[in-house]
Amino acid sequence: MAYTDLDTKCINTIRILAIDATSAANSGHPGAPMGMAPAAHVLFQKAMTFNPKNPKFLNRDRFVLSNGHGCMLHYALLHLYGYDLSIDDLKHFRQVGSKTPGHPEAHDTPGIEVTTGPLGQGISNAVGLAIAQVQAAATFNKPGFDLLNSHTYVFLGDGCLQEGVAAEAISLAGHLQLGNLIAVYDDNHITIDGDTNVSFTEDVLARFESYGWHTQHVKDGDNDLEAFEIALANAKAVTDKPSVIKLTTIIGYGSKLQGTHSVHGSPLKADDIKAVKEKFGFDPTKSFDVAPEVYAAYQETANKGAAAEQAWNELFDEYKQQYTLEAEELIRRFEKRLPEGWQNSLPVYKSDDPAIASRKLSETVLGKVINTLPELIGGSADLTGSNLTIWKGAVDFQPPSTKIGDYSGRYIRYGVREHGMGAIMNGIAAYGLHIPYGGTFLNFVSYAAGAVRLSALSQHQVIWVATHDSIGLADGNETSAAYYVALTSHHTPSVLCLSRQNLPQLENSTIANAIKGGYIVHEDEEADVTLISTGSEVGICVDAIKTLAADGIKARVVSLPCWEVFDTQDKEYRLSVLPDGIPILSVEVYTTLGWEKYSHEQFGLNRFGASGPYKDIYKKFEFTPEGIAKRAKATIDFWKGVTPIRSPINRAFTQLI
Amino acid sequence: MAYTDLDTKCINTIRILAIDATSAANSGHPGAPMGMAPAAHVLFQKAMTFNPKNPKFLNRDRFVLSNGHGCMLHYALLHLYGYDLSIDDLKHFRQVGSKTPGHPEAHDTPGIEVTTGPLGQGISNAVGLAIAQVQAAATFNKPGFDLLNSHTYVFLGDGCLQEGVAAEAISLAGHLQLGNLIAVYDDNHITIDGDTNVSFTEDVLARFESYGWHTQHVKDGDNDLEAFEIALANAKAVTDKPSVIKLTTIIGYGSKLQGTHSVHGSPLKADDIKAVKEKFGFDPTKSFDVAPEVYAAYQETANKGAAAEQAWNELFDEYKQQYTLEAEELIRRFEKRLPEGWQNSLPVYKSDDPAIASRKLSETVLGKVINTLPELIGGSADLTGSNLTIWKGAVDFQPPSTKIGDYSGRYIRYGVREHGMGAIMNGIAAYGLHIPYGGTFLNFVSYAAGAVRLSALSQHQVIWVATHDSIGLADGNETSAAYYVALTSHHTPSVLCLSRQNLPQLENSTIANAIKGGYIVHEDEEADVTLISTGSEVGICVDAIKTLAADGIKARVVSLPCWEVFDTQDKEYRLSVLPDGIPILSVEVYTTLGWEKYSHEQFGLNRFGASGPYKDIYKKFEFTPEGIAKRAKATIDFWKGVTPIRSPINRAFTQLI
Repeated sequence: MAYTDLDTKCINTIRILAIDATSAANSGHPGAPMGMAPAAHVLFQKAMTFNPKNPKFLNRDRFVLSNGHGCMLHYALLHLYGYDLSIDDLKHFRQVGSKTPGHPEAHDTPGIEVTTGPLGQGISNAVGLAIAQVQAAATFNKPGFDLLNSHTYVFLGDGCLQEGVAAEAISLAGHLQLGNLIAVYDDNHITIDGDTNVSFTEDVLARFESYGWHTQHVKDGDNDLEAFEIALANAKAVTDKPSVIKLTTIIGYGSKLQGTHSVHGSPLKADDIKAVKEKFGFDPTKSFDVAPEVYAAYQETANKGAAAEQAWNELFDEYKQQYTLEAEELIRRFEKRLPEGWQNSLPVYKSDDPAIASRKLSETVLGKVINTLPELIGGSADLTGSNLTIWKGAVDFQPPSTKIGDYSGRYIRYGVREHGMGAIMNGIAAYGLHIPYGGTFLNFVSYAAGAVRLSALSQHQVIWVATHDSIGLADGNETSAAYYVALTSHHTPSVLCLSRQNLPQLENSTIANAIKGGYIVHEDEEADVTLISTGSEVGICVDAIKTLAADGIKARVVSLPCWEVFDTQDKEYRLSVLPDGIPILSVEVYTTLGWEKYSHEQFGLNRFGASGPYKDIYKKFEFTPEGIAKRAKATIDFWKGVTPIRSPINRAFTQLI
Repeated sequence: MAYTDLDTKCINTIRILAIDATSAANSGHPGAPMGMAPAAHVLFQKAMTFNPKNPKFLNRDRFVLSNGHGCMLHYALLHLYGYDLSIDDLKHFRQVGSKTPGHPEAHDTPGIEVTTGPLGQGISNAVGLAIAQVQAAATFNKPGFDLLNSHTYVFLGDGCLQEGVAAEAISLAGHLQLGNLIAVYDDNHITIDGDTNVSFTEDVLARFESYGWHTQHVKDGDNDLEAFEIALANAKAVTDKPSVIKLTTIIGYGSKLQGTHSVHGSPLKADDIKAVKEKFGFDPTKSFDVAPEVYAAYQETANKGAAAEQAWNELFDEYKQQYTLEAEELIRRFEKRLPEGWQNSLPVYKSDDPAIASRKLSETVLGKVINTLPELIGGSADLTGSNLTIWKGAVDFQPPSTKIGDYSGRYIRYGVREHGMGAIMNGIAAYGLHIPYGGTFLNFVSYAAGAVRLSALSQHQVIWVATHDSIGLADGNETSAAYYVALTSHHTPSVLCLSRQNLPQLENSTIANAIKGGYIVHEDEEADVTLISTGSEVGICVDAIKTLAADGIKARVVSLPCWEVFDTQDKEYRLSVLPDGIPILSVEVYTTLGWEKYSHEQFGLNRFGASGPYKDIYKKFEFTPEGIAKRAKATIDFWKGVTPIRSPINRAFTQLI
C-alpha cells in the first residue's frame, strides 16, 4: 500500500507511451490514458489477478476499457506486463495490420477481453462477463473449490454513461446484485463538446444508487493512489451489489492543455510533448523509452499472476479427481466443443405434419436441446410469452435473495432492454463458457444494432431469437437447421427470424438441406421460372405452382432461409439451386433490397406494412398464389428476349475478403 | 375538483370501449387503458387545453402515449371528445385501412401527436416536443403576448423506462430544465414477463431525481382522482424542472384478471367482459355503448377548448398588429414554407476549386443558410468539432440559469445520446415549427435505428448530418444539393453521409444534376462500361478512366449520391444515366448490398474495415484506379456473350406502393 517514486515512474511511463504512440500515429486519444494512468496502475498492480503468459487463464480477472478510444492506456499496460505486445507494436499504433488498432479489438490483441470503442458497449459487455462468471461459479464451484471467483473491472467515462445501452445494462446489473462487477467512472468533466456541463449534469452516483449499486467517490484520482486502492478493496468487500467508484481526474494530466477537450482526441504538439517529458523526468529526445526498473516492477506482478494460475491449475487437478464429470464438462465448454451427438435431439418433421408457427418450433427445439447443452443461457427482452424462449423447468437467473431463481439459473429476464441484452450477450460470449441467446421481435433487433454490429465484428457466438417476422423461417426442419447452424458457428452471431403465424411443413425441407442456407423445395426439369423465397412466403410460392400450371407454366421453388450460409456453399451447388437458362423471381413480404443478388426480378414490399389481421395484409399486398403467378408470368415474358439468361450466381469477379 | 358519479361513468366508458374494441379485433391491449382511464380522464378534463375541431391548434397542449400499445385509451378519448373519429372507427380497431391501427400513428388519426408503440420512443418524442415549445416560446413570445405556453404531457409505463433511449432523453430533459414537460409513470408492476420484480427493481423516482426532475407519487391511481389532479397542478407550478408523477395503478382494473399480465396483451374473455360490464353498471348485452351524458360531459370540455383557441386567435390578431414580421414568420413556419429565394444562399463550386472534405462543405452550407432558415435547429451527439455542425455566432439552447446559452438558442448539445437525439428530433419535427438536424458519425446512426425507422414511418423532416463515412458525398455541389433536397422534403427524413477526408470537385457536378439523386459525371458515347459510384469513390472512378484508356477501353462515370431520390426520377432520365447496351460496374468501399439494383457487377467491401490511415486502407482493398480498371475489364469480358445487355433500370413489373 505504500507507494514510492517507482510507482510514479510507472504511471508516467504509461502516460508517455500514450503520448508517443498517438504522436507517431498522428492520431488517437492521449487524454484518457494520461488521466487514468494512476488508476490503471493501482488496479493492475494491487487488485487484479492475471497471467500475461496466458491471457486466456479461465479464472483471471477481466478488465474492460469501455472508453475504448483511450486504448493506448491498455496497450501500454499489456506491453509493460509482458503480454505478446512488443514496443514495436506500440510504435505501429493505428497502422494497417498492427496489433494496436485505433480502438481495442479482442481478436487483434492478446489481453483485450472485448472490442470497445462505440460508447456504452464496454460497460454493458462487463455486465455480461459478470453474469457469466456468477452463473459459471454457481454451476461449477463446489465446497472447498472456489474455482471460479474472478472479478470484472471496467473503466468508463462520461460518454459511456450518457448512452442508453449503458443505462439498460447498469440497471439490470443492479437488479441482479452482481457483486463481482466493479466499475470505475472517470469523472474528468470533459467530452468532445467541451465541459460536461453543456449536456450532462445528472448526479451520476445518485443514479447508480437508484439502480441498487454500491457507490464511492475518490476525489483526487490523479494523486491519491491510496484512496483508490482502499475504494477498490471496499468494492470487493461488497458482495451483494455491483460497485462504482467515481474517480475525479484531470484529462491529459501533465499536458499544457490538461483539463480541456483539446487533449481528448488529438496528439499533443511537439513542444507540449517535450514539456511533459521534462516535467516527468523523462529524456525529451527519446521516444518509447521504458526504464528497466519499470519493466521489472510490472514483471514482478506478472510473475505473481503466473503463480496464481499455477495454484489454480493445482486446485483444478484436485477438482478433477473429486468432480470428474464437472471438470470434463468445464473443459469441454472452455474448448467450445458441443457434446457428441447433441444434434440428435433436434426435432425432425415430415411434410404431412401440421402447420406450426416457427416461433413455436423454436420453442420445441429449445426444449429438446436445453438439457443436452448446459452452455446455452437464454432469455428475452420481456417477451418470453411471445418469443417462446423459455423451456419447461427453467430456473431464472436471479439473485437467490429474490427467491424467484438463483445464480445457477439459465433463464435471464432482461427486461425491455434490447440493446442492453445484445451487449450483455456479447459479454457472456466473451467470458468463454456459454452460448447466449435472447429473444425479441425481429423489428426490435434494430434497437440493438450497435451491439449486433459488435457481435459480428468480434465474432461472438450470440443467437437472437427474433419472432413476429413476416419473413419467418419456413418450417420445422428449417427451424431445427437454423439452430444447428447457430449452435455450431462458434465465431458468428445469428439472428433466427421466426413467424408468429402457423406455417406448413415443406416438401424436401430436411435439416441436411436447410443447413446449406438454400435448397430446392420443388424441382421441375422443364421449368420456365424459378421462384425463390424465404419463410412464410415459400408455402405461398408452392401454392403458386398450381396457379401457374393452369396456364401451362412450370415453376421451380427454392427456399433460401439464410443468404450468408448459402453464399458459403460451393458454386456448383449454388448453380444447381439457381441454374442458368430461366429467369428467377424472388418473393418476400419485405424490402426487395439485396434480393437482386439472387434473382432477376423481385416481388417485395418497399414500404412500411399496415395494421390488420395478417391474412388481410397478405391479400392487400397481393402475396397470394395469384399475385405471385401474375409476376412470374411478367418475369418470363420480360426475359424471353435475352440470351443467354445467366444465373446471378455467375459473377465477373470475386470480392476481396 | 369535486368528482361525481358522472366522472366514474366517463372513466368506465373509456374502459368498456377499450374492452369492446380489443374484443371485436380479437387482439390488442386492454390492460393499460383500463388502468390508466382515471388518469386520462382527469388529465384531459382538468388540465389540458385542446380543440377537437382543430387538432393542429398551435398552442394546444400535447399528449403522448408512450406506452402506445394502450392506444385504445387515447382512441376512446378522441372519439368521446368529438375528434374526427367515429364509433365505427373504434369498431374497426386494428383493421386494414382503419383510422385506429394497433399502435397510434400520427398520420392516420386526428389528435395523435406522434407515432408510438416501440417502447421508449414516446417519452423521448415528448422531450422533443417540449424543447420545440420552449424554443418557439423564447423566439416568438413578447411582453404581453404569452403566445406559446403549452405543456407536453406523456404517459409511460415500466417498459418505456427500461429502454435506453428513454434514459437518454430523460437525462437531457433534466439538464435542460424543461418545466413544460409532465410525465405520468403508470406504476402497475406488470410487464409481459410478469411482475416487474423479475427485472426492474430500480427506484424510479430516485433515478428521475438524479436527472434533476421534480417527482411525486400518487399512491391510488385507480380511485384518488383528487390526488392526481393536485399532483398535476403541482407539476405545472414547477417551471424550472420537468415533472414526473408516479401513479400506482392496477392494470386491467375491473377485470377478473386485474393486476396480472394476462390482461396486458390479450382481449378479455366473454364471461369476464360480461362481469366487468355488470360491475360498472353497463348493459352486458351491448357493445360500444356510450351514454348521452358521457358525450355531453366531454363535449363541454371540448367547447372550452374551442373557446380557448378562439381567445388565442384574438391574441394572435393583436400580435400581428404589433409584431407583424414575427407573426408572418410564425405562419410561414407553421405552413412549412421555406423563405423565398433561400436556396440562393447555397454555395456553388467549380470543378477547379480545391478538394475539401464534405463534412467541411456541410459546415459551409449550414453557415450560409442558418440565418435564412430560423426553423433550422441543430446539434450533435457530442461530436460538434468532428461533425462540424455548428455555425459562427451560434447560441446554445440551454436553460438561461446555466449562463452558457438560453432558450432561444438553436444549437442543442445532445450529449453522447444518438438514439435519444433521433427520438427527440422526431418530437421537435412533430411540434411543427422547426426542421431539426443532428450530427454523429455515420456508423453511429445505427445506435438510433429505432428512432430513424419512426422518422420514416411518421414522415418527419429530420436531417442526420452523418460524417466520417468512407462513402461520403462527393463534392461541394453534391453537398449543397443534399441540403437542398433534405430541406425541401418536408415529409421525409434524410441522412447526409459526409466524408472526413478531402474530396475533389467533380466535372458536371451541379446542384441541378445532384438533386436528381444520380447523374453523369463523365459521358462517352462509345463507352465499353459504365462505372457507377458514390461519394469518395467517384473521384477514383474518374481517375480510372485514364487507366482504362491506356488499354483502349472507354468508360462512362456516374455519381449516384442518393438511391431513393434517383428512384423517383422518370424512367427516361434513369435510362439516360444507366443506359442499355454496356455493362455497369458499381464501386463503393462498403457492402455491395443493394448495388445489384443499379449495376451488373459490384466492387465493394463485404467485411469490416481496418484500422489505419485512409490512403493505406484504400490501397489494401484495391480501391485505386488500377483496382477499379482491373474489375471493369473483367466486367466487360464477362458480359460480352450476352445479348441484349439490358440496363437494370428495366424491370419486368413495378412494385406496389
